[in-house]
Formats: sequence, structure tokens, C-alpha cells
Amino acid sequence: MSGNTDIEGLIDLMARLPGLGPRSARRAVLHLIRKRGQLLSPLAQAMLTVSETARECLNCGNVGTTDICDICENNGRANGQLCVVEDVSDLWAMERSGVFRGRYHVLGGTLSALNGVGPDDLRIPQLRDRIDAEAVTEVILALNATIDGQTTAHYIADQLEGRALLTSLAQGVPIGGELDYLDDGTITAALNARKPI
Amino acid sequence: MSGNTDIEGLIDLMARLPGLGPRSARRAVLHLIRKRGQLLSPLAQAMLTVSETARECLNCGNVGTTDICDICENNGRANGQLCVVEDVSDLWAMERSGVFRGRYHVLGGTLSALNGVGPDDLRIPQLRDRIDAEAVTEVILALNATIDGQTTAHYIADQLEGRALLTSLAQGVPIGGELDYLDDGTITAALNARKPI
Repeated sequence: MSGNTDIEGLIDLMARLPGLGPRSARRAVLHLIRKRGQLLSPLAQAMLTVSETARECLNCGNVGTTDICDICENNGRANGQLCVVEDVSDLWAMERSGVFRGRYHVLGGTLSALNGVGPDDLRIPQLRDRIDAEAVTEVILALNATIDGQTTAHYIADQLEGRALLTSLAQGVPIGGELDYLDDGTITAALNARKPI
Repeated sequence: MSGNTDIEGLIDLMARLPGLGPRSARRAVLHLIRKRGQLLSPLAQAMLTVSETARECLNCGNVGTTDICDICENNGRANGQLCVVEDVSDLWAMERSGVFRGRYHVLGGTLSALNGVGPDDLRIPQLRDRIDAEAVTEVILALNATIDGQTTAHYIADQLEGRALLTSLAQGVPIGGELDYLDDGTITAALNARKPI
């Protein structure tokens, strides 16, 4: 308790961020106040800009500050490849690797009977439309290797069969992984997909 | 990488908060963008307000949005008691307990020969002035129970001797503490300060 309503209000809002609780929110706000010139003002300004301009890309579902995101607008991106991901954070993870040069399609979740999420709640109809409109030749299903992710991948593969080449990310030992620490499922997948050296 | 410079800039700034790294900053920014109406806009506005108005209280060193903070301005606070703390976060911790009804004095750190922090780098001269100006009868040295904190407490006690009643926080077993998990120093302090039931 700082005894000041403005500062208390800021702490309460900060505490609602994922990964921050009340204690770390207080610590963050004190840090911000100490560095109000270098950090707090620029951060407030950046948040204001993003809050006014942020929107979902109408084409792929990525977040950006324009109706069509920078990746969709980029003519340097290969037109024929479409990488399907569950969530914007997955798209960002793919982009960090810097390897994929095609375009993306964000589903916005996975199918889940339990949570009442059906195909029309995800961006699956839009995916079907894009395959024709953008002359897509390969759809890479980069969904998470979870039950829900794989169920969704199977459903999409069924829907798109014959309309484009369908591929999925390889499963196996992660780089730097030690066999002793891997689960049985990963070792089984790696062994089944073994390849000649 | 979202591929958008505004969003990337926001992530970079968020990653400079204590307790957030690049990964949690990305997660926080995605969360903010999803809740831009309920969370991002109010947070941006709260930050802007605080960045424009936040300042140190000229009297006690607490942070607030006015030259004299709400605690110093509050006439309901006992004038005769002054609680000396190292840092604003310590003042906030004392206030959360809700037990102390006097006023505070924030030193802004501890004496440290190693880091070149002397008495004039802390708010010790101002403390001396306040004792006379505010007719303080008791100074509670609520410094951390660390080597630096206790060294500073000893120095201040020396300086203020005879000018007010000097007290310090009790040391002993914390509420809910189990003896088996306490360090030797705490057990020794608790045993030495034992009291009749």
C-alpha cells in the first residue's frame, strides 16, 4: 500500500498480467516509477499506440496494427506454402526460428468437444477459402503435439484432402535432448521415424 | 517475432520489467492485445498518469503524485512516531500490515563502504531535521535484518542518541515458522529475547 490511489490502481492493473502477482506487480511499478523517464513514459506511450491500433489480420489471424499484417503483405514470402498454427504465440515461435518463408494461418485454438469448440469456432472455413484464393500447394500443419492439437490436425487433414499437399512437423528427439529425460512417446516416435545416416 | 515494429517495441520495453523476461513479456503483450479494451487501454492510461505525476515526497521519500505524500498529509497519523525504513517497498510492506499509525522516513538504501554509500547519500540529514521540526518522540528503526541494514541502524542510533526514544523491530520466530526450518541466528535471537508467558 503506497497510500496513493493512482499508484495503487496501476499496481492492481499490472497484477492482472500473466506471470505477475501482487508482489511482483508492486516491484515492477516501483521500478517503473524510479525509471519514469527511460521506461515508464515510453512504455505508456507504446501501450497507448498498440491499444489504439492493434487488430487481428483479416487474412491470417496474426496480430498487427493494420488490417492485413506485415507477413501477409510481404511479397517476399512464398505464396504456395501455408503454415497452420493454433495460436499467435505459435506463429511468433515459428518466426523466431527464421526458417519458414511462407505465410501463416492462425486457427485461434483447437477443436474441443469438452469445451464446445467446433470447426466453425476456429478459422477453418477461412483456411479452406485461402487454399483456392492464394493457390496454396502445401499446407504445413504445425499444431502442438498434444491430444487436442493432433485431433485438430487430423480433422483439418480430412477436410483438405486432395486440395493441397499436407505435411506435419517431424516428431523426435529435440536438439540438445537427452534420451534419459525423454518420455516414452517421444522415444517411440523418434525410433519409428528413424532415418539412414 | 510478430513481424510488427510497434508490437515488437512494446515487447522489448515489457521485457525490461523486473520479473519478466523476453518469453513472459511476449505472453503478457499477447494477453494485453487480446484484452485491449478491458486491460491494455486502462493500463496505458494509468501508466501515463503516473509517469506524468509520480514524484518522491519531499518530506519522507515515499512515492506519490503530490509533493507531500498522502501519508505525510494525513492528520490522522500520530505526529510523534517516525518509522525509518530502507526503501519505499519496505514502507509499503509496513502499511500493508495496517498496524503502524505514525509517519515514515525512507532512507533510500543502506550505508555501504563497499558501494561508496555514505550518510549524506541517504536521507539521514533530513531525518535529523524532522525529529526537531515534527516533535518526534519515538524513532522506530525498521531496517532489514541484514548486515547492511543493521550497520545502518547502529549508525543512525548513534547519531540520534538522546534526541528521541529509539526502538527497533523485535527479532524472533516468524508467525507460522517451524523451528526445524529456521536458521541458527534466528533461533539464537528468539531464545535470547524469550519472555515469560
